[in-house]
Amino acid sequence: MSEYVAPLRDMQFVLRELAQVETLSSLPGFEDATPDLAEAILEEAAKFATNVLSPLNISGDREGVRWDDGEVYTAKGWKEAYRQFIDGGWNGLSGDPTYGGQGLPRLISALVEEMWNGANTSFALCPMLTAGFIESVALCGTDLQKQTWLPKLVSGEWTGTMVLTESQAGSDLSAVRTRAVPQADGSYRLHGQKIYITYGEHDMTDNIVHLVLARTPDAPEGVKGISLFIVPKFLLNADGSPGPRNDVRCMSTEHKLGIHASPTCVLAFGDNAGATGWLVGEENRGLEYMFITMNAARYSVGIEGIGLSERAYQRALRYARDRIQGTEAGSGKRERVSILRHPDVRRMLMEMKAYTEAMRALACVVGAAIDVSHAHADAGVRAAKQKFVDLMIPVVKGWSTETAIHVASIGVQVHGGMGFIEETGAAQHLRDARITAIYEGTTCIQALDLIGRKVARDGGTTIREMIMAIHDVEVRIRNRNDEQLTAIANELSRSTASLEIAVDFIVANYGSDIRKTAAGAVPFLELVGIVAGGWQMARAADVALTHLASGDGDKTFYQGKLLTARFYADHILPRSEALAHCVVHGADAALAMHDDAF
Amino acid sequence: MSEYVAPLRDMQFVLRELAQVETLSSLPGFEDATPDLAEAILEEAAKFATNVLSPLNISGDREGVRWDDGEVYTAKGWKEAYRQFIDGGWNGLSGDPTYGGQGLPRLISALVEEMWNGANTSFALCPMLTAGFIESVALCGTDLQKQTWLPKLVSGEWTGTMVLTESQAGSDLSAVRTRAVPQADGSYRLHGQKIYITYGEHDMTDNIVHLVLARTPDAPEGVKGISLFIVPKFLLNADGSPGPRNDVRCMSTEHKLGIHASPTCVLAFGDNAGATGWLVGEENRGLEYMFITMNAARYSVGIEGIGLSERAYQRALRYARDRIQGTEAGSGKRERVSILRHPDVRRMLMEMKAYTEAMRALACVVGAAIDVSHAHADAGVRAAKQKFVDLMIPVVKGWSTETAIHVASIGVQVHGGMGFIEETGAAQHLRDARITAIYEGTTCIQALDLIGRKVARDGGTTIREMIMAIHDVEVRIRNRNDEQLTAIANELSRSTASLEIAVDFIVANYGSDIRKTAAGAVPFLELVGIVAGGWQMARAADVALTHLASGDGDKTFYQGKLLTARFYADHILPRSEALAHCVVHGADAALAMHDDAF
Repeated sequence: MSEYVAPLRDMQFVLRELAQVETLSSLPGFEDATPDLAEAILEEAAKFATNVLSPLNISGDREGVRWDDGEVYTAKGWKEAYRQFIDGGWNGLSGDPTYGGQGLPRLISALVEEMWNGANTSFALCPMLTAGFIESVALCGTDLQKQTWLPKLVSGEWTGTMVLTESQAGSDLSAVRTRAVPQADGSYRLHGQKIYITYGEHDMTDNIVHLVLARTPDAPEGVKGISLFIVPKFLLNADGSPGPRNDVRCMSTEHKLGIHASPTCVLAFGDNAGATGWLVGEENRGLEYMFITMNAARYSVGIEGIGLSERAYQRALRYARDRIQGTEAGSGKRERVSILRHPDVRRMLMEMKAYTEAMRALACVVGAAIDVSHAHADAGVRAAKQKFVDLMIPVVKGWSTETAIHVASIGVQVHGGMGFIEETGAAQHLRDARITAIYEGTTCIQALDLIGRKVARDGGTTIREMIMAIHDVEVRIRNRNDEQLTAIANELSRSTASLEIAVDFIVANYGSDIRKTAAGAVPFLELVGIVAGGWQMARAADVALTHLASGDGDKTFYQGKLLTARFYADHILPRSEALAHCVVHGADAALAMHDDAF
Repeated sequence: MSEYVAPLRDMQFVLRELAQVETLSSLPGFEDATPDLAEAILEEAAKFATNVLSPLNISGDREGVRWDDGEVYTAKGWKEAYRQFIDGGWNGLSGDPTYGGQGLPRLISALVEEMWNGANTSFALCPMLTAGFIESVALCGTDLQKQTWLPKLVSGEWTGTMVLTESQAGSDLSAVRTRAVPQADGSYRLHGQKIYITYGEHDMTDNIVHLVLARTPDAPEGVKGISLFIVPKFLLNADGSPGPRNDVRCMSTEHKLGIHASPTCVLAFGDNAGATGWLVGEENRGLEYMFITMNAARYSVGIEGIGLSERAYQRALRYARDRIQGTEAGSGKRERVSILRHPDVRRMLMEMKAYTEAMRALACVVGAAIDVSHAHADAGVRAAKQKFVDLMIPVVKGWSTETAIHVASIGVQVHGGMGFIEETGAAQHLRDARITAIYEGTTCIQALDLIGRKVARDGGTTIREMIMAIHDVEVRIRNRNDEQLTAIANELSRSTASLEIAVDFIVANYGSDIRKTAAGAVPFLELVGIVAGGWQMARAADVALTHLASGDGDKTFYQGKLLTARFYADHILPRSEALAHCVVHGADAALAMHDDAF
């Protein structure tokens, strides 16, 4: 069984040549984050991913989790791996040094997170949710709350959850009904049932701390009546150690298509006296707080998609190298060859590779922008970067996850019949990837966020700035007078023109006809993803040509980079025009359809 | 748990208004196959699908099959359902009346087959493989073989299999190594191990008859040294009843992503004295015979894709009607609505519906052509139709299955988080659909067949005839001066132009640079599927407008038909241009890539 191997060479390329990691160390607080340190961390993380997490991926999938009378037992080896994970300091990589974190740039931790997800998505979900808890409490909690919870969560000694969904409140969180009744001592008692709680119960740590959306008794209806609470599994003793059991209980775990080793829990709060919780920030502002940190979680789910795509690609490539079948078409030779020699297998692998590299490059550029938006000394620079980050979060989330499903499905196909056999492992990647386009906001939710808050609200200003940046790259690579780069520039130009048409349409119509723009929101999101990915691939091709022209570096790598960008331009960028057509012309039939005619 | 409901209204529409079922009853042998009989059969089949097969679909998936010491036990209820299936005469619907079949047109049995697959794909595989056996032996067997085996297989008293694959011989059947040694009595003794044998062993009938590819001792190497053998599980007594056990044994069943209730067997032939078999036709012509019937099997797998798409659509639609979530965007109302009212959910459902109807219409038009190619009195008409059928078989197979995966994945998405929970049933359709693009020849194999034997070999003549027929439809609907039909005509025109460019490229380059055309074979297949599907949707829109103009028939249905065709034109046809671009320009990067650069 081959294990995950982190794509260090490509990660180094993206870090240094596309995301300019060296500029981050000039930001206040990131002085130590030099390129060399970044690479040293990636190398260590790569070992952990290959040696500790990857070997548990298939076994965890097969074994799943076991629920027994409210307790949840993770798969064999899970506890030990988690212990090694926190002992290695991996949990707090980008955490605030005030609470014991290492304060490294998001750019670096994003690549590390890609490794965790590539090696073992079910495992990686646990620290991801903990990070969501940490960010919320760090931004909105009281000093006492921070001191009480954050050190243990940053270290990973305890884990955190995000407890939002109820059976009647999925995409529409305004329908949350869980009640929180204030008590004389300033705490609240919570009553209600929550579903889809990732790592809502498990046996890896001696406490679990939930961040729960609920309504106080006099709260207004809808989104403006929801508050956020900290509700630990075990209440704390005076010395901060876990004390009595709180009134929260895991009623069951779900039987899912994928991520079998990640417990997805139904949690009952307050079946007895009520679960004790503490308000975070002000009453009725819970959704607002949650959305601040949801952005971080959505970015992380985008990274999941990239990790899964890389893993699916690696497995398919390994199989394509090893599997001998058929002769080489057109060669006249009778000797059998590895299927990597077959044109269609090459096309499939190139599509997997091109998408994965484009998604990684885009996510890293956004990751570096997150760092600048947090740490830059100049408030104007911070604000400008924040607008770019806000624009791209739904794209990194929505595009990278939908694409991951597509890439993982191609990975199955490369294996032929073996792809359908579970022992091969290719099918698991498809099963695991399928959730990423659903949780932390479905692709539709991302797309509505994109067209509404991120594009229409500022009249298209931010996205048009991005389009200008893409034009600049297009002009730069065209001026190099290289055949490959000119071909890439041509497709980038056409697809950017399609994007502009779609942006104009969204900006012109969102205010007057939201249903018409909403029907094209998902095609629009895919369009933005494809063009933004093409932008990064064009930059990569530009860098690669420079290395090839000067003769420095690994020629095979840079030629491969150039050809992968060319493939992206020939196979993926041309999809833009049809997507723009869907955005502009595609709504009428779907909206005009009589409900009974479906 | 909602059960499958056959889409009788749409099937009637396709039968009468697109596939012209009434013309079939003028063909020799099909005199009884009137439209009214066809509809009566569909109504009865619909009941069987809903009442008998559909209730076993989820339970069969969960229970799977059980292997125990060479015996395979199907899931609870399977034996009884199979008994009802053959007692109802369903197995021999299109079977030769000489052997007890009902001799009905393929067009009709195709729609019935769609129902079996929509209700329960794992079950439907058993009669499908039996049909493959029947067709091979009917075409290539001796009279004695036909008399011995066909009556019991046409009735379904025994089942048949197709035994091709070995671990080193998947897509490349020339690598088959199973040996067949001639005996003095005219029989052969077979030795070898075969994999991926659908219903290779089960407990539903008292005999199973295998059709096995193997090599005789002096056979030439490669494709021209493979012969075809009949190898029953039980040898027959003199009275034709099952007698002694033959030397064939099921070694294991596979643990698969989907179709859990269909036993996928490893079969060992001749672990002891050798499995007794009888040659079908002449030695060394086995692959040739197998390919004759493979076309029928490939058509059936295309039908599987359509059945699964319909089922995924029905389940998603039901959920979208029932699930209340959010308010209606732009309405200003605060009341919560079913998610069917949300524009993106409508877009997803329309995409599922449009693809499914286009695939069904195309498969039925091809089904009617199969009937004409078999039964028409005029040899010239038969030959012309056969060319069209040959062209379209890889498209019906490849396009309908790849699209089914896409449609089933959308079905998961419509359900949001519930889609990922196995109990919901949506995920099973995705898991089941995933195999259809792999077995009976992967999409790549279909696409190579398409560009080579079906397009390049006749210099593009047959496909250009189809393109002419599409042009005729385009002109006809444009001349109706209706806004919807004009929009459809415009997109059909653009996409057909893209197809012509791609055809020209394949015809010009296949002979001189097979690798270059092969790299674009799968995009080409998808392009042909999309345009041919658009052709049928345009015809459907034309018919619908006539009914709407004259005011006869169900207005909601025909308006829905028109809008679905319009949606297909706006969302699906525009993909053609990018696909043609891949065909013409997309090969270079994939082929130039150094193997080490992947």
